[in-house]
This record gives sequence, structure tokens and C-alpha cells, in this order.
Amino acid sequence: MKRTAEEIAGFIGSEIVGDRGVILESVASLQNAGPKDLTYAEEKFLSDVNASRAGCVIVRGGEWPNRTVIISANPKLAFARAAKWLLDEPVDDVGIHPSATVAPDARIGEGVKIGAAAVIESGVVIGKSTVIEAGCYIGKKTTIGDDCVLYPRVVIYKDVTIGNRAIIHAGAVIGADGFGFVRDGKSHVKFPQAGKVVIEDDVEIGANTCIDRGSLETTIVRRGAKLDNLIQIAHNVDVGEHTVIAAQTGISGSSVVGANCLVGGQVGIGEHARIDDNAIIGGQAGVLNGKRVRARDGILWGTPVRPLKQFLLEQAHLAKLVKEKP
Amino acid sequence: MKRTAEEIAGFIGSEIVGDRGVILESVASLQNAGPKDLTYAEEKFLSDVNASRAGCVIVRGGEWPNRTVIISANPKLAFARAAKWLLDEPVDDVGIHPSATVAPDARIGEGVKIGAAAVIESGVVIGKSTVIEAGCYIGKKTTIGDDCVLYPRVVIYKDVTIGNRAIIHAGAVIGADGFGFVRDGKSHVKFPQAGKVVIEDDVEIGANTCIDRGSLETTIVRRGAKLDNLIQIAHNVDVGEHTVIAAQTGISGSSVVGANCLVGGQVGIGEHARIDDNAIIGGQAGVLNGKRVRARDGILWGTPVRPLKQFLLEQAHLAKLVKEKP
Amino acid sequence: MKRTAEEIAGFIGSEIVGDRGVILESVASLQNAGPKDLTYAEEKFLSDVNASRAGCVIVRGGEWPNRTVIISANPKLAFARAAKWLLDEPVDDVGIHPSATVAPDARIGEGVKIGAAAVIESGVVIGKSTVIEAGCYIGKKTTIGDDCVLYPRVVIYKDVTIGNRAIIHAGAVIGADGFGFVRDGKSHVKFPQAGKVVIEDDVEIGANTCIDRGSLETTIVRRGAKLDNLIQIAHNVDVGEHTVIAAQTGISGSSVVGANCLVGGQVGIGEHARIDDNAIIGGQAGVLNGKRVRARDGILWGTPVRPLKQFLLEQAHLAKLVKEKP
Repeated sequence: MKRTAEEIAGFIGSEIVGDRGVILESVASLQNAGPKDLTYAEEKFLSDVNASRAGCVIVRGGEWPNRTVIISANPKLAFARAAKWLLDEPVDDVGIHPSATVAPDARIGEGVKIGAAAVIESGVVIGKSTVIEAGCYIGKKTTIGDDCVLYPRVVIYKDVTIGNRAIIHAGAVIGADGFGFVRDGKSHVKFPQAGKVVIEDDVEIGANTCIDRGSLETTIVRRGAKLDNLIQIAHNVDVGEHTVIAAQTGISGSSVVGANCLVGGQVGIGEHARIDDNAIIGGQAGVLNGKRVRARDGILWGTPVRPLKQFLLEQAHLAKLVKEKP
Repeated sequence: MKRTAEEIAGFIGSEIVGDRGVILESVASLQNAGPKDLTYAEEKFLSDVNASRAGCVIVRGGEWPNRTVIISANPKLAFARAAKWLLDEPVDDVGIHPSATVAPDARIGEGVKIGAAAVIESGVVIGKSTVIEAGCYIGKKTTIGDDCVLYPRVVIYKDVTIGNRAIIHAGAVIGADGFGFVRDGKSHVKFPQAGKVVIEDDVEIGANTCIDRGSLETTIVRRGAKLDNLIQIAHNVDVGEHTVIAAQTGISGSSVVGANCLVGGQVGIGEHARIDDNAIIGGQAGVLNGKRVRARDGILWGTPVRPLKQFLLEQAHLAKLVKEKP
Repeated sequence: MKRTAEEIAGFIGSEIVGDRGVILESVASLQNAGPKDLTYAEEKFLSDVNASRAGCVIVRGGEWPNRTVIISANPKLAFARAAKWLLDEPVDDVGIHPSATVAPDARIGEGVKIGAAAVIESGVVIGKSTVIEAGCYIGKKTTIGDDCVLYPRVVIYKDVTIGNRAIIHAGAVIGADGFGFVRDGKSHVKFPQAGKVVIEDDVEIGANTCIDRGSLETTIVRRGAKLDNLIQIAHNVDVGEHTVIAAQTGISGSSVVGANCLVGGQVGIGEHARIDDNAIIGGQAGVLNGKRVRARDGILWGTPVRPLKQFLLEQAHLAKLVKEKP
């Protein structure tokens, strides 16, 4: 879309100074932006604003006689909001592609796109303005809300419920069987994986991430949670509201991660663990089976997970030991 | 399917007490079960049996005058077996979907389903009653046995052999090139990845798991092994019978994992390592290249892997050092 | 293809001794090779050459009166080159499969194969002799060079540039949104992921590996780099020329990995880190956010990453402490 700087300032409810009519078409970094780009400057980069070729810069304040600027108390947040609006492209190919396979009893909302070679099974319900890109597979009786985007080749198994405004990246698999077996001598009998998956509103799920269905319970990813790529969420896991989890982290069966947590990449969380709301867990940390992780301990690190300060002290002691007697 | 409690008791060869005619349609946990659900109770939850609304509960013993119970020495195992039988649904769309692409010389067994947009290349052989879901790709000359289930978007490269009753979840990739190069100055020449993959009977493979083909040998996953999601199995690896591997574990080239092992999640096993039969390796552990891991050492942990007891003592010592001289 | 031993010796520019006319059809290991196989022997296995049934063996030297051998200063490298040539199969189904969906304005080079159910969006450019296997998805305005192979179900988002001779394995996802959010109270506003991805010539990308697009910059994987399976490359990352990265490693946003590095499996690299050219990082190591990793320190290991020698000394000290006071 094209927007004037004034329209953007209006959208984010901020004051504009300079050429209100400058036309913006895209976004870029302060360094790379050109005359048709919107950008923003964090405090530490304010000295670069005058050198930027950006059409418009969102800043916290200051005097910029030769620039068009939008004033915002939180330039990065304002930029993120404005960028979303500016970059929003209408879906140009709403409707069901002739090569898609859609069950006759599936209920497809208004303004939905179903891409080429996509498969929508019987009993599926898809809300309005949702985009199901090429090659996606939606299993029986799964429900998907309004305004979602499923990028190509997403697989949703049967009996999954997805809320509104979910974004699911390519190759993600939601609702595969959890990993549970009962030993019968040396061999393993599959424990039933007959539960469901619920993905609430405003969740984003990264590429090739896997979220297994519950065994006898429900696996749930709550409102506003953000999951990066290649994450493993096992059966019966409960991920709290607005929790952010970085790539390649794995959460084992029946664990509960609270709300507003930050979980780094490659973290491993054992079975039946419980992470408090607001916990911060550093990359590659490990939480043992059944452990309770408390947020009051600050940033947590290491395997088994411990306060970052303690982890660093331990590392320092170890290094010192080696120095003394190599 | 619908089954009476009596039919289920008969199927698992167990005694039934109570209303033999109660009709069961599904399974649930003791807490969530309703009148049409089968469930089970482990010893520690026996006190919850009377409060459960389940139509039928599998228990080890006891007196339950107001309940319909099935008596089994191993309620969880009996439940797993019964659930599999009760939940088994006949495939309702056997045959080749008109949007699938099947090579004229592929040999497709009786009762096979080939889903929408699936691709079956030349020389493929598929046994009877196997289900190939939508969007799967089966490469040239690959052989798949009877009664397998390949969930949507599984990719099997050429010259792979899969036994009977394999379950392969969505997005798994079997037979991609192993990762081998020969340095030629600064650049890398691809070492041939011309070997095969053999997946034996009763193997389950998780979503988005990757099993590479052998370079000059064969990558093999033996009978009854169970692999979780997002696992990496490199070229020439040999995974033993009935070994269970949790999510996000990686096994490097030419390593051998024995039979009946339990390997936790996010474990890393180097090249040319050898894990004894019956070994138990905890989550996030690391086995160095060329190492032999012995099962007699009990549960193993840490990187490099060592007996759990030693790992915990080391952690305790470290913590103490810090306490003494922070 | 079938080639005589003499043709192969000619191709790699090496001397041949023995039956120049022996016909070779495939490759195998020294142990498994038969009369139609080419193989090679490293120095330590020279004693096995006489027992091998191989049609032709590449060796460094020696007297082999009863064998056909090719003499090369680097038998493994010569074998890799010869194998590539010997095993090269012409693509037998060049052209666009009738079930593929190709935008009318896509520019498809000569000798290109577009497999079944593949989707090529508007504005795509594909160079000559490139193979796009079944079910691949190529997003708008993406450019792919000559002689590439995209295995089945690869997803390339829009605005990605891929050079010549790239090999991309099944399930890889290139160009998905990076993982960036701005906090707005408890919820998270998506930071724009509007950058590009550039994959240079001769890059190989493993199965189910994810390479995110830049946020405001470009994610780049430089010439000759080799990435194994299930790797995560975050937004704005720069992977240097001829760098080799093993499976399940993750590189966080805006980090730079130099040229000719060797990065083991399951390594985690934080944000804004910088790895020198020629660095060697062992499996499961962790590089903290913002760290500079210097190659002069030799092999690096552990979390936080440190010289291997120091890591081993620390482990030894720890073990000793436990022995003294268990």
C-alpha cells in the first residue's frame, strides 16, 4: 500500500513534523531506508537520523528541521504498528483454487483463500478472511477462526481448534500423535493419543514447529503466545498467554509454562514441569522432569536450570580451579 | 467404533465386574471420562475411581460395587491395547484420489489409500491396507509394507525400504542425502550419498523427523523402535530394536544405538559412537565422537555423558564452591 | 550411467593400472563393493584392497598386480568427484507436470522440471536445468538460478534469491518471518519481517532446515556453505563462504558466522554474536548473545563456549573433586 506520512501519523495517533504529504511504500532500517521508506530511530541511533535517506523517521523527540519525523514515546512499537498497516496487502486471490480438494461439508467463511493443492477434510470449519496457502492439509472436524494465515504446507490433524488471527508458518505440524507407549516386555504398545489441541487467538507458530495433540487431555497454546521455528510441544502441554519461546526449544509431556514467560532457544523442559508466570529461561537451559521453576529467581540458566548469577559464579570458579592447577 | 464393556474385556482377556452391556465409544482420563468412555486407574489414583463418571474403568483389583470395572494386572497396558482396538476407525476413502499422481508401473496393494495430491514415483511397491495421506511423496523404487500409515506431507526419497505397520507422521523426511563432504582447498565436494534406508516393522517416526540415507552403507531403524518429533538420524546410523528416542535428539553419522535403549530429548550423539543395548541417556546429554556408552553405568547424563550420580555430585560440589566463596 | 575405469581415470585426471575396460555402474564401500562398483581406500585400509571385490579402487599408491586401481594423491576426494560424475542421472521428466500450478508471468528456464502439485507464484524466475520436485512452493518474485535441485515439499517464501547449483532438501523452509516482537504491555506486536534472503551459489541446505527472512536487513548464506538438517537460521544472519554447519544447530538473529567455519550439531549461537573465519565449534556448544568468538583459540566447546582444552580440564577437575569428597 501507499500511505502519506500524515496518514501513518494518524493511524498511530502521533504528531508529525515536516512534509506531511511524503508518500511511503515500505519500511527499512535507518541505514538502508530510501525516500519511500518509513523507519524509526532508537535513542542510541539518533545521531544517524540526519544522515538517513528515509522518507519519514519515527523518533522520540528532538529537533529535525530537515526531516519528516513522527514523534512517539516508543518509536519501535509505533514503527511495528505502522509497518503492519503499511505493508498489509489485500489477498489477491480469494476463493478456492481449482486444484484444492475441499470436502463438500466443510464450512468455509467469506473472503477465505484456499491455495493450490490444499486439502480440507470433512467437517472442517474455517472463519472469514482466513488464508490457507498452497498445499496445506486440514484434518477432519478441525476449526480455524477468522483472519488467520496458514503458510504453505502446514499440516493440521483432525480435531484441532485454532482461534482468530493465528499465523502458522510453513511446514508446521499441529495435532500429530503425542509420544507415549506402554512397555509390554521388550516391545512398546502405543498409548492412545486421543486428546485435542487448542491454539487460542493471536498465536504465531514458526516454520516446522510441531505441536502434538493431547493423549487423554488437551494440548493448549494460549492467547498471544509466540513460538519460533522447529519447536517441539508435546502432548498435554499448556503454554501460557503471551509467552514467547525461541527456536528449537522442546517442552515434554504435561508440562505447564506460565503466562508472559520468555524461553530462550534450544531449552529443554522435562515432563510434568511447571514454569511460573513471568519466568525468563536462557538458551540451552534444561528443566528436569517434575521441577517447579520460580520466576522470582530472575533469569535462569544451565542444566539443571539455576539462577544466572549462580551459573556464572560456578563457571568462574571452575575456570579459576583450572588456572590454579592446570 | 462402539463396543460393549464385555467385548473389550474379551479382547484383552480380562475379567469384568458390573454392567457388561455398557456401551463404550471413546477413551478419556479418569477425571474427564463420561459414561461412554473407557478409562483406567493406576494404583495411586484408585481413590478417584468412585468419583469418575467413566462408563468402565480398568483397575488392578479391589471392590467396586457401583462401577463397571475390568480387572487387569497391568491396567495401563490393558487400557492401551483396548483403546487401540476401540478407537480403530476403518479408512473411509480407500483408493487413489483423482488428484494424486501415481506412476503406471507402481504396484499398489489391496485396500490402499493414496490421498489427494500425493505422488508415487516409478517402481514403488506399496503393501496392502497401507494409508498414504494427502501430499505424501514416495520416491522411485521405494518399498512400503502392509498396514502402514503415512500422515500428510511425508517425503520418502528413492530406494527406501519400509516394513509393515510403520507409522510416519507429517513432515517426516526419510532418505535425504547424508551430510558428507570432502575438502578441496576451501570448498567442499559432496561425498556420494548413495546408500539406502531400511525402516523395519512396527517403527513409529515423529513429525518433521529426518532420517538420512546411507552414504555407502545403509541407515537402519530396527523393529519396534519409536522416534519422536524433530529427530535427526544421520547417514549409516543403526538404531536398535525397540529403542525409544525422544524429540529433537540428533545421532551423527555411523553411530550405533543398541536395542531397548531409552534416549531422552535433545541428546546429541557424535559420529561413530556406540551405545550399548539397554542404555538410558537423559535429556540434553552429549556423547562424543567415537565413544562407547555402557549400559551397566545406569542412567547417563551431561556432556560428555557420565553416570547420573556423578553428574549430580559434580553439580552439588560446584554449588557448594560458590556458596563458600561467592 | 555406465563408465569404464579408463573414462573415470580420465575424468579425474589420474593414472590407471590394470583392466582399463572394466565397466563401472555404481559406487560402494571397500567392504561392500562388487565387480561393477567403484570404491576407494584410505591409507589405513590398504590391507583390505586385495580382499575387495570392487571393480576398481582409487588408492594413493602401491603395487596391486591383481586389481584395477586408479592412483590419486587424495583418494577420497578423487572418489567423491568420480562418484558425482558416475552417478549423475539425466532428469527424465523435464517440463511442467500437468498438476503443477505455474503463474503465467513466471519465467522458467530451459530444461527445467516442475514436479507434480508444485506451485510457482507470480514473478518467479527459474534458471535453466533446475529441478523443482513435486509439491514445492515458490513464492512471488523469488529468483532461483541454474542447475539447482529442490527436493519435494520445499517452501520458498516471496522475495528470496537463490544462486546456481543450490541443493535444497525436502521440507526446508526459506524466507519465513523472523521472530521479532515489540512488547505492548503484556502482548506482543509483530516487528516487520520485511527483509530478504539470499542463498548464494553452491549452497546445500538440509531437510526441514529453516532460514528466516531478514527483518529490515537481509539473511544471507554465502557461496559454498553447507547446512545439515533441522537447522535454524534466524533473521539477518550472515553465514560465511564454505562454512559447514551440522544438524540441529540454531543461529539467532543478526549473528555473523565467518567463512570456512566448522560448526557442530546442536550448537546454539545467541543474537548479535560474531564468529571469526575458520572457527571450529564443537557439538552442543553455546555462544552467548553479543559474543565475539575467535578462531585462534582452536576448537571451542561448552556453554558458554571456551577452548576445548579448558573445557576438558574443567571436567577433569570436577570429576576429581567428586572422587576426593563424594
